[in-house]
Amino acid sequence: MALVVQKYGGSSLESAERIRAVAERIVATKKAGNEVVVVCSAMGDTTDELLDLAEQVNPVPPAREMDMLLTAGERISNALVAMAISSFGAEAQSFTGSQAGVLTTERHGNARIVDVTPGRVREALDNDKICIVAGFQGVNKDSRDVTTLGRGGSDTTAVALAAALDADVCEIYSDVDGVYTADPRIVPDAQKLEKLCFEEMLELAACGSKILVLRSVEYARAFNVPMRVRSSYSNDPGTLVAGSLEDIPVEEAVLTGVSTDNSEAKITILGVQDTPGEAAKVFRALADAEINIDMVLQNISSVEDNTTDITFTCPRNDGPRALELLSKLQDEGRWADVLYDDQIGKVSLVGAGMKSHPGVTAEFSEALRDQNINIEMFTTSEIRITAVVREHDLANAARALHDKFRLGGDEVATVYAGTGR
Amino acid sequence: MALVVQKYGGSSLESAERIRAVAERIVATKKAGNEVVVVCSAMGDTTDELLDLAEQVNPVPPAREMDMLLTAGERISNALVAMAISSFGAEAQSFTGSQAGVLTTERHGNARIVDVTPGRVREALDNDKICIVAGFQGVNKDSRDVTTLGRGGSDTTAVALAAALDADVCEIYSDVDGVYTADPRIVPDAQKLEKLCFEEMLELAACGSKILVLRSVEYARAFNVPMRVRSSYSNDPGTLVAGSLEDIPVEEAVLTGVSTDNSEAKITILGVQDTPGEAAKVFRALADAEINIDMVLQNISSVEDNTTDITFTCPRNDGPRALELLSKLQDEGRWADVLYDDQIGKVSLVGAGMKSHPGVTAEFSEALRDQNINIEMFTTSEIRITAVVREHDLANAARALHDKFRLGGDEVATVYAGTGR
Repeated sequence: MALVVQKYGGSSLESAERIRAVAERIVATKKAGNEVVVVCSAMGDTTDELLDLAEQVNPVPPAREMDMLLTAGERISNALVAMAISSFGAEAQSFTGSQAGVLTTERHGNARIVDVTPGRVREALDNDKICIVAGFQGVNKDSRDVTTLGRGGSDTTAVALAAALDADVCEIYSDVDGVYTADPRIVPDAQKLEKLCFEEMLELAACGSKILVLRSVEYARAFNVPMRVRSSYSNDPGTLVAGSLEDIPVEEAVLTGVSTDNSEAKITILGVQDTPGEAAKVFRALADAEINIDMVLQNISSVEDNTTDITFTCPRNDGPRALELLSKLQDEGRWADVLYDDQIGKVSLVGAGMKSHPGVTAEFSEALRDQNINIEMFTTSEIRITAVVREHDLANAARALHDKFRLGGDEVATVYAGTGR
Repeated sequence: MALVVQKYGGSSLESAERIRAVAERIVATKKAGNEVVVVCSAMGDTTDELLDLAEQVNPVPPAREMDMLLTAGERISNALVAMAISSFGAEAQSFTGSQAGVLTTERHGNARIVDVTPGRVREALDNDKICIVAGFQGVNKDSRDVTTLGRGGSDTTAVALAAALDADVCEIYSDVDGVYTADPRIVPDAQKLEKLCFEEMLELAACGSKILVLRSVEYARAFNVPMRVRSSYSNDPGTLVAGSLEDIPVEEAVLTGVSTDNSEAKITILGVQDTPGEAAKVFRALADAEINIDMVLQNISSVEDNTTDITFTCPRNDGPRALELLSKLQDEGRWADVLYDDQIGKVSLVGAGMKSHPGVTAEFSEALRDQNINIEMFTTSEIRITAVVREHDLANAARALHDKFRLGGDEVATVYAGTGR
């Protein structure tokens, strides 16, 4: 008997009909002899609708109340899934995050799980019940207030529960049937991967792949919980995310895929004094404003005046705020100028095989050169190469790299209904 | 400094705009120097929409999950009201029923409050906060499961909290600005009452007045919590419901109003053996099927065969089920026949003044006679007279009684927007 944790996203629960389809799958998993714990997101666009209402009522709503509001969405889908399961003749019991023992920090809107004590869930499983747990939410240990885990937090709930219950697998259901070598909407011959390791998934998620939330993969890796990415619209086994980079034999290491990201902006600070602490001042100011920076580049300084240029990328949404902040510091005479560019795209090649493929960086650059695409920034990690290009070149760059490294197949990828997200 | 509990119904919270209007009123109450506790129903039609979703997913949903589902509605309105208050510069904190200490029996869907331990609410009030409590919901003391109090349960939450916090008044806000001498949609010159006692309100609520939920008035009477019925669309002081029948001096006792009810059906059982226990069998069978009976009449038995007829009324919704049940018993040879009639209406005259008005029953009958309306059933209590008439005569009967007892005024009653409910 295996213990399976299944997480269903909002698109899998967008209507009563879809909820019944999901319930049928859950009951089938149970009848196949498994213990089943289900984590549900809010139905369809519920969260966006609630956010919209909040915006109308108070454009700067208190975070504690925002959490109280948003968690209602998961309670609704939770209860409906439990009802649907019962109509298929199985016994289900729903739990709020609090009832399932999801204990978090007290930071409303973006709390972190500090412990999971699923005693009531374990007890219900022992009584042969299917357990339905509201995703995305927890309770602060000290204040007993309801908290949320940030966007995509239901994935993290599922992995954390799987870890605490020592589950055999954590299945993440959405409208996509696995992890692909590229976004099939951009690269039509993208192939579904059967398996990849945690590190590869982390790099893909960090580089723009939306299929799994970064934090949930970090959690799964830390507790070694195998994840399976599947579609609630098919019976395809999906993609397994498991195992560590170190455990992949060199001869089996391959290139995993190409990911693209057009959600960032690029900021360049010109003429920064190349003395200790100047860069720190920049990044401290941004960190205090809670702006996450992604890529950072600093080249050697000019010989003439001992100044250097610092370039970094950050979420495009935060760009104007970052620019304003840095322009203020510029007025204090810290540096020469600040440049802002939000027409960029980031294309990355990821794969454990990179370690054993000499010349990947050269081939990467050549593939873009052949399309006459200029590389504006360039960074690498052990299993990733990333280039920043013009945003309008992004799709072309992804296809060129996908071709160059022979990641495609003969068939056009199947994309299921509703893959618009 | 007074402690005011305010309860806002769904029609007062049907949009972001209405929520902001309600928040403004709450903040004004607080700024006037009061401690304020607010109980919110779910927004507009939320509860009906959730019920509809549940019906689609499972026509016979498990009661525990139904409660988990429905309570989400109050959490949403709760959080939104707290946010709106914060936008007007006051500090609010929202509480679920569980967080506010509303402890109930374990009967899902129709739980009763067994205790209210509002320690966290009291503490927040002491910290100068406005407290927002989700209505209609509580938590079962033993299982820690979420429960609901049945339709209209938010009124009961408000009164129970007012009692536990020793509040000075419990204000019930809806789209109607008070208790009227009759339903203004039926009797255009109906007058708003300034004050009535608990017993009068109980009789009106039991006889079809929808303005307050019977159980909440019973609770208010038991704990002597003054209630005020007000409109969230105006600044009218509304109607005060307070004090006991016994405390009204005879010279101040008046007739309160006329109420109408067309939600019942009438069932007559013919030829019941007039021996001890026969009537008990009928009512036991109905009670076991959870059918509430209202009026019951049994006349003297026939001399010839020692049988009698029993007539009773019950909710029209339950009529077909009651009829089926009784027809089965009839097959066992218990009685001659069962008659069913769902075209009836109930008109009642209520008021403490009845005790000191001789001849009210005569005048009541004459008023209906003058309109050529036949009385089919007739019962009285200390402060109420009720007649069952043809449904199509109901409005006419109400107007005739209202005129006869000079309950009207010179003006046509003001009915506010949205009084459709």
